[in-house]
Amino acid sequence: MKQLSGIGASAGIAIAKAFVHVEPKMDIEKKEVQDATAEIERFRVAVAKSKEELTVIKDKAEQELGADKAEIFAAHLLVLSDPELVDAVTGKIEAEKQNAEYAMNEVASMFIEMFENMENEYMKERAADIRDVSKRVLGHLLGVQTQSLAAVTEEMIVIAEDLTPSDTAQLNPAFIKGFATNIGGRTSHSAIMSRSLEIPAVVGAKTVTEEIKSGMTVIIDGTEGTVVIEPTEEEKAYYEQKRQDFLKQKQEWAKLAGEQTRTKDGKHLELAANIGTPKDLNGVLKNGAEAIGLYRTEFLYMDRSELPSEEEQFEAYKEVVERMDNKPVIIRTLDIGGDKELPYLNLPEEMNPFLGYRAIRICLEEQSIFRVQLRALLRASAFGNVKVMFPMIATLEEVRQAKAIFKEEEERLRSEGVAVADKVELGIMVEIPSTAVAADLFAKEVDFFSIGTNDLIQYTMAADRMNEQVSYLYQPYHPAILRLVKMVVDAAHKEGKWVGMCGEMAGDEVAIPLLLGLGIDELSMSATSILPARSQLLGLSQQELSSFAEEMLGLDSAAEVERRVRERFLTT
Amino acid sequence: MKQLSGIGASAGIAIAKAFVHVEPKMDIEKKEVQDATAEIERFRVAVAKSKEELTVIKDKAEQELGADKAEIFAAHLLVLSDPELVDAVTGKIEAEKQNAEYAMNEVASMFIEMFENMENEYMKERAADIRDVSKRVLGHLLGVQTQSLAAVTEEMIVIAEDLTPSDTAQLNPAFIKGFATNIGGRTSHSAIMSRSLEIPAVVGAKTVTEEIKSGMTVIIDGTEGTVVIEPTEEEKAYYEQKRQDFLKQKQEWAKLAGEQTRTKDGKHLELAANIGTPKDLNGVLKNGAEAIGLYRTEFLYMDRSELPSEEEQFEAYKEVVERMDNKPVIIRTLDIGGDKELPYLNLPEEMNPFLGYRAIRICLEEQSIFRVQLRALLRASAFGNVKVMFPMIATLEEVRQAKAIFKEEEERLRSEGVAVADKVELGIMVEIPSTAVAADLFAKEVDFFSIGTNDLIQYTMAADRMNEQVSYLYQPYHPAILRLVKMVVDAAHKEGKWVGMCGEMAGDEVAIPLLLGLGIDELSMSATSILPARSQLLGLSQQELSSFAEEMLGLDSAAEVERRVRERFLTT
Repeated sequence: MKQLSGIGASAGIAIAKAFVHVEPKMDIEKKEVQDATAEIERFRVAVAKSKEELTVIKDKAEQELGADKAEIFAAHLLVLSDPELVDAVTGKIEAEKQNAEYAMNEVASMFIEMFENMENEYMKERAADIRDVSKRVLGHLLGVQTQSLAAVTEEMIVIAEDLTPSDTAQLNPAFIKGFATNIGGRTSHSAIMSRSLEIPAVVGAKTVTEEIKSGMTVIIDGTEGTVVIEPTEEEKAYYEQKRQDFLKQKQEWAKLAGEQTRTKDGKHLELAANIGTPKDLNGVLKNGAEAIGLYRTEFLYMDRSELPSEEEQFEAYKEVVERMDNKPVIIRTLDIGGDKELPYLNLPEEMNPFLGYRAIRICLEEQSIFRVQLRALLRASAFGNVKVMFPMIATLEEVRQAKAIFKEEEERLRSEGVAVADKVELGIMVEIPSTAVAADLFAKEVDFFSIGTNDLIQYTMAADRMNEQVSYLYQPYHPAILRLVKMVVDAAHKEGKWVGMCGEMAGDEVAIPLLLGLGIDELSMSATSILPARSQLLGLSQQELSSFAEEMLGLDSAAEVERRVRERFLTT
Repeated sequence: MKQLSGIGASAGIAIAKAFVHVEPKMDIEKKEVQDATAEIERFRVAVAKSKEELTVIKDKAEQELGADKAEIFAAHLLVLSDPELVDAVTGKIEAEKQNAEYAMNEVASMFIEMFENMENEYMKERAADIRDVSKRVLGHLLGVQTQSLAAVTEEMIVIAEDLTPSDTAQLNPAFIKGFATNIGGRTSHSAIMSRSLEIPAVVGAKTVTEEIKSGMTVIIDGTEGTVVIEPTEEEKAYYEQKRQDFLKQKQEWAKLAGEQTRTKDGKHLELAANIGTPKDLNGVLKNGAEAIGLYRTEFLYMDRSELPSEEEQFEAYKEVVERMDNKPVIIRTLDIGGDKELPYLNLPEEMNPFLGYRAIRICLEEQSIFRVQLRALLRASAFGNVKVMFPMIATLEEVRQAKAIFKEEEERLRSEGVAVADKVELGIMVEIPSTAVAADLFAKEVDFFSIGTNDLIQYTMAADRMNEQVSYLYQPYHPAILRLVKMVVDAAHKEGKWVGMCGEMAGDEVAIPLLLGLGIDELSMSATSILPARSQLLGLSQQELSSFAEEMLGLDSAAEVERRVRERFLTT
């Protein structure tokens, strides 16, 4: 047997035969065509077939995986409708009498190279979309059967270089027990999908496609990030036990779905979920979230060619609010810029987009966009328990201006006779160090805070969280971060306001004892983290943790804090 | 008369006739040449002449303006020695029988476009270098006299679209009384040069070249950022008075050059200068600096093709240390990355370079570079009062690792019998929020802190200080910034350590009363700011300011803090 190490992308154990998913080989020869019109027609048919396929995959993905996961196929469909690409191909066929495959491949390669050479990460990813789409069209032109993962109908573990969005959309969790890939990290597309589908996965294992042949027995340990090839009977037994234990624990957790979250000493801490679209609600409800702690509205604005209308937004917000049945729904206003672009807004290129024109900074400048969203939010507030939260707040002036605009729109709607909730709580994200340091001033102006740790950590440590070269500085347990959390919590409580947290840190088992000790009131996380967090909190006592957390603030390093928490509260 | 508003780039008043500096018109026609060899020779002669000119300008700039200002011409000379550019031009002449001007212009345009399309600001600036150089070569090929500012021999005010490095290097302050440009900001090349030459200047005034003709009388108010065209006699008299007042104040300041800096209540606050190269020392000594508070060593590494040797560094450090004659010299170890690149290190392209692989992060990884510098610093320490400072510190682990490497090199030198100072104080830049928030932990590990406000403000406010779209968020007086300064000062004093400041804020008249009140021990600034700062401090009392500063920490906004300081301590 052999063992490979990678990154654990999704927890759990899978044991099954391998299915090595390889790219079909496509030989593209250059030929001169006589009848360009017929060749163009052949190209159009291939495009049309590809579009049909994509529409089917998109609908399937929407139903099974949620709208945000399906958006990638809307993007693929857009590529195929893009006249720049289609006209370039037909132009080449017409003018240069090239065969459709060759023309398509040339044009696609040119676009792929262009996008790959862009520095902006978002644009770089467009290269992958074009590659995925062009393979599909070429498959049709060449009559090459593109190997479909949807065709797998026995229990298998998929082994691949990487899994494209088209691939993952076809994964049926009934048969695909897990997967391992050569490339990718914890936040790559395939990793996110594995968590969403709740199947064990290891990514970035470098050589799985070389070491594994279809039919070999393989074990995926998605918790540890290990791939075992052709295990011995002993190993099989060991992992089988581990698998059973994991499933048993999941069942235990599932029992907590209907419960409130109370610590050993009776403190209620609200466990909420982060969502991107209404489709994410299935997972939220199944996992027993007590609220939506962060509704990221930017997905409504992305992968399209113009701003969403007030009506469209209202419908989306209303659906979430209604389905949450009077449980709190914290909706964050548009948070674009940084790594999230909206091409149709023509935002300026920036040298350091994470320190640039983003979120509330854009909304206060482009007020027409902001007001449409606020009206939609206010109208949705009549249907449940809506709270509104402003992102990227750095100054009190910004809070006051955002609140004033909100009040104006609220009054305008009331004067028009439109139903609006009596009171919509207004809060801010605390994700910029200045706001944490001056939290006492901000606490007087808002109803609540939500600490956005992803950004707060990256700014406080001056380390881009997407940059692998400095990822060791992304330290949630750095005493400075814990102190900022304490400043925010204390300042809020002094004014009788509550504090939540909605970054990755909120669902992290090492952070949870610390956050409880520091007095946080709400934690908002991925839906799948809620039950483990609830289970963990049942065993913790806030009173005990309060002095422990205080002690941690004086330690030297994040590593030392982590060591102490693990030693005392965690078995691993 | 007419008045235009721009950005005051360099304080003071100038009244004189305008000299409108226009770009010579160059008509470049495409011709076929018969004798390619002769044409290539013609091209080589033009390049050689351009190099000669540049060498003269470079030497002149080095003498009159300092080595760092002259480096741009070293870069221009490098462009002309670049085989990629030169071979491309001769290749076009040879293969396509193009005339030299056409070939040169084609190749230059291609490179300019390529660099302009890069997102990295540093690379973008290379486009300006190539444009400047190619104009020079084309001038020689076309026999067009490029208008030289060096030829101005009566008192004039220069009016231009912008001033290139070649232009500013030719400005003779004896004749050029001031200048105004259409484009540029406070940190553009022309603005920096105007301060360095101490001539009044207004940049970014948009339409000066349209509104002003050569020979018109013009007034430049570089303090207010105003350009007055064809003033009335009354206006002339008003500005002449203002000019006299300004010069008188400068004379008053000059009297303080030999003094120590003491407040009204007798507190000594050390006023130090920031420098980039030994050549900057002339200004430092003239302006009565009590120390070098920040020696930016990265200039030793820039605009060259390989790392500087230990010997070369040692000589540069030793020169500064010796000329400062036992006054403290704080040398900061290599701070590259961010907006400062060293092409020969092949650092990775980053999405957010300000949050990336920079400064100490690089030095701890590439230890051979770091150790060479530390050895050079240690050897220089034997010749005066050297203190060493590490930039971009975010964790205690980094400090400990840097100190350990320093000690290793120190011991190695001692064991080799090399002279080293008995004690070299080791400090850190506090420019990352985590370090300010946990300053008490860091204070135990270092001899001193220097607060780097340029970065500290940009990270604390999450606003790129080079990005105009978010420049309103670059707020030195934000209560959060003042609180961080207080945390750092209090933490240091509790451990008996001292705290300096070396960002732009240190020389700012609004910040100075606040910093004195917060207890800062040293301020390091541009040499030309030292005397005004000393003059201001003579009139301030630390005791009074201590409670005032405390009160400012609780105000709502930077704007309110500034208003209160101005009202109480400043006349404008």
